[in-house]
Amino acid sequence: MAETIHNSWRIIRYQGNHTPFVGEDIIATEFPFTIVINGTEFATIVCSPTYLLELAVGFLASEGIIHFFANIKHMHIDETQGFAYIELHKSLSPEERNHSKRFIGSCCGKSRQFYFKNDVKTAKTITNDLRIANEQCLFLMEQLQNRSKHFQKTGGVHNAALCTTEHILVIRTDIGRHNALDKLYGHVLKKRIHLKDKLVVFSGRISSEILLKISKIGVSILISKSAPTDLALRLANDLGITVIGFARGDKMNVYTHPNRISKNS
Amino acid sequence: MAETIHNSWRIIRYQGNHTPFVGEDIIATEFPFTIVINGTEFATIVCSPTYLLELAVGFLASEGIIHFFANIKHMHIDETQGFAYIELHKSLSPEERNHSKRFIGSCCGKSRQFYFKNDVKTAKTITNDLRIANEQCLFLMEQLQNRSKHFQKTGGVHNAALCTTEHILVIRTDIGRHNALDKLYGHVLKKRIHLKDKLVVFSGRISSEILLKISKIGVSILISKSAPTDLALRLANDLGITVIGFARGDKMNVYTHPNRISKNS
Repeated sequence: MAETIHNSWRIIRYQGNHTPFVGEDIIATEFPFTIVINGTEFATIVCSPTYLLELAVGFLASEGIIHFFANIKHMHIDETQGFAYIELHKSLSPEERNHSKRFIGSCCGKSRQFYFKNDVKTAKTITNDLRIANEQCLFLMEQLQNRSKHFQKTGGVHNAALCTTEHILVIRTDIGRHNALDKLYGHVLKKRIHLKDKLVVFSGRISSEILLKISKIGVSILISKSAPTDLALRLANDLGITVIGFARGDKMNVYTHPNRISKNS
Repeated sequence: MAETIHNSWRIIRYQGNHTPFVGEDIIATEFPFTIVINGTEFATIVCSPTYLLELAVGFLASEGIIHFFANIKHMHIDETQGFAYIELHKSLSPEERNHSKRFIGSCCGKSRQFYFKNDVKTAKTITNDLRIANEQCLFLMEQLQNRSKHFQKTGGVHNAALCTTEHILVIRTDIGRHNALDKLYGHVLKKRIHLKDKLVVFSGRISSEILLKISKIGVSILISKSAPTDLALRLANDLGITVIGFARGDKMNVYTHPNRISKNS
């Protein structure tokens, strides 16, 4: 197993008119991780090789296979070979076994089928009245960027943080935007964290798939330093989620459900 | 159908101590596009709604379902509903019908299974002796960025360009990195473009899946402004592809097969 989320690689560096020189570059690790449920191979995720148990748990919850950590009877992670062996208390239905048959993740979302069928089972409309001041949103984003600096050597990873309105509780990192959130989701389920007063701060772009994941986790506010898509915003409108994008420096855009955001005096 | 790759959205903009104000933001469109082969639903891709025919063709080629444009007997794109109806000269094998069963794209790659099985059918080792000067690599990247500026209002799309060593031939844009390349691939197949003297300039991160797509397209040099992953570089080594990353301003890193790059005098 790649022990870390980075490897080094010998490169030739060109800069302007200088003679090209041999150097080392730090490279994000891509690690294939296969999830086996009740003895049958279910899916393979390519990820950064950290928090594999949380990733497996969060992935199964995102896919609607489990709802609580207690749905898992037994679980063994083989970190060397990249396998999660999971025994559930139930057996999978034929639909669950074929769950990912037609879903082509294209780095930007899932299928219409997924949106229309699987998600109605797991996406929740959020109605809580959590409120946060705009400066606090920017403070949390700044904290995420400062604290994840040593993860960002490669320019190739995404960070997701579960926060109160006051501070960051936990950060997860992955080359896959979705995986970073699944790791958070797995952590939430494992620790049975109450989410009513929590929000997520995220480095990646907000696609429909990301927004659905936030809804499934059950968080009402998503703050990103990147852009949302239109489909993600329509879903956020429907599902009651406050979406903040382009949170950078002293600026941010509130796209949906702005009532949860207050202006500092 | 969303006619363009952008929509506008009403937002509340916060900036420093200014009073928050209502504004408009330009948002990348996410469009679900379902591919039907020989009357059976095959896959749904979420994409930017442009060049849908090229996307469908490139996607099928990337998945190893077709090898030439002539493998398609008939094709109809319903741009309003987001469907491609494709008749092939062959019927699909059971494996092809289940091709995406276990593949979880996680914004960063495909599965180990995919890498080990499907890809051996379509990935090609590149042995050509195309050469390009380092300044020319940076010039092409600068051209891509200049020419795609009006696509980049949203911060949410990726660009891929097919180039000679001298200039850009065609640019394709999508919210999905993979889709941008599949649109290029579809264009190449449709126009039967000879690839021996061509290269690809790309805005996105180079994951294993992106690298495999470059190999399938059959191009020997990939220039990106972003970072590669370790798995992508190992594949590039094996498949004979020159990978250049972080091509920005007057700098660039050559990660694999540096023999194709020469220093300007």
